[in-house]
Amino acid sequence: MKPIHGPLLYEGKAKKIFESEFISQVYVEFKDDATAFNALKRAELEGKGRLNCQISACFFEKLEKDGIPTHYQGLAGETWMRVDRVEIIPLEVVIRNLAAGSLCRETPLKHGEEINPPLLDFYYKDDSLSDPLLTSSRLKLLGLLNVDQQMEVEGIARAVNESLRPFCNDLDLTLVDFKLEFGVDSAGKILLADEISPDTCRFWDQKLSDPEECILDKDRFRKDLGGVLDAYREILKRVQAACPKPRYCK
Amino acid sequence: MKPIHGPLLYEGKAKKIFESEFISQVYVEFKDDATAFNALKRAELEGKGRLNCQISACFFEKLEKDGIPTHYQGLAGETWMRVDRVEIIPLEVVIRNLAAGSLCRETPLKHGEEINPPLLDFYYKDDSLSDPLLTSSRLKLLGLLNVDQQMEVEGIARAVNESLRPFCNDLDLTLVDFKLEFGVDSAGKILLADEISPDTCRFWDQKLSDPEECILDKDRFRKDLGGVLDAYREILKRVQAACPKPRYCK
Repeated sequence: MKPIHGPLLYEGKAKKIFESEFISQVYVEFKDDATAFNALKRAELEGKGRLNCQISACFFEKLEKDGIPTHYQGLAGETWMRVDRVEIIPLEVVIRNLAAGSLCRETPLKHGEEINPPLLDFYYKDDSLSDPLLTSSRLKLLGLLNVDQQMEVEGIARAVNESLRPFCNDLDLTLVDFKLEFGVDSAGKILLADEISPDTCRFWDQKLSDPEECILDKDRFRKDLGGVLDAYREILKRVQAACPKPRYCK
Repeated sequence: MKPIHGPLLYEGKAKKIFESEFISQVYVEFKDDATAFNALKRAELEGKGRLNCQISACFFEKLEKDGIPTHYQGLAGETWMRVDRVEIIPLEVVIRNLAAGSLCRETPLKHGEEINPPLLDFYYKDDSLSDPLLTSSRLKLLGLLNVDQQMEVEGIARAVNESLRPFCNDLDLTLVDFKLEFGVDSAGKILLADEISPDTCRFWDQKLSDPEECILDKDRFRKDLGGVLDAYREILKRVQAACPKPRYCK
């Protein structure tokens, strides 16, 4: 099932964006393409698009319940979502509850070490520059956000963590870290955009103690651990237990 | 001429530190070794140690006149300096007046673009991690400075720029950017340490318009432009015109 959509507006590494029948909304199609290391590593994982679309829907509905402004309107097919049309702010906002990934290469923090309070990092979303880390001063210098917008984005990002961390914990999942993207709608309102999935979050299975076996996210692909789709399916199974019927758009 | 010194305390890439006859002071010997790209590129440049030592002496005396607390006590030979004994804080503090080097690889800023107000960046001084950029939150997380110390270091770094930028300008040199290191003495006082030289600053000759010919600093070595020592000699000639006789320790 796919919605009746208009022309393609944009194609990214993992998603396509199409015009919808509503001027203020667009359709997102989740692709099966997997990329890592700034797209140096690529693969097609059949079914990933559906999994990430359905997982994201559950997370967006959870966030909506907790009063967080998102672009999500509802599902429009197995790999399709309708969302508010926004201008994406070219920033990746990362929240880290435990140290993993690039943070361990860039600081003496040990893999798995708890970070309290959680660390919030801004990265400049630019593949040609390899998505560099931004200090507050650099963020200001680039003029991507004004001071009020920066505070708002930080506030929403921390609220997402306050909502999803215990939600995941109840599903026996440790929310290690995650990347968010934000957009500005036609009224100038900042909305959480993009997706929330094992492509953009690190999830560790609390039922398994082995540091590799417990990985239920894109690190399985980055590190060639195998079982990528099985991990994504496990995440969907658990989030659907908490959110059995994500809504479909009318 | 070299001072009567005690045992070697530490050897870095460009300097050796020796015990002195004073418990609260040590001798620094400036070496001829040149390194770049986290020491992946190495060379020995005969005479560089003397040039950097004499240039640093002039800059430290200028900063001293402007009331900036430094570790400098005086020269103790052509390649030797006596300085206060400090515990080095493992941070590199970089001030940028114009965009160059890594900033242009990490932001869309163009080479030579003026940055106003000047940008201050902290890097974690750790070769094994390739001296990564630190956000304020990461700096806090690593616990290398408390909030007061961070404000003090930032204040001194900006004061160094306020002192040296016009000083260089009067010598027809553009102070593009520079890296500072700080130490804490036995009384807990923060002092500017390390060196101030073409190894740690970018200087562009205002008398030359060609973007390569005007370079009078370590970028000549990094970029294989040749004439490295001639450039360092030119810097010494100009700073010595403003500070003809740096003092010798008694």
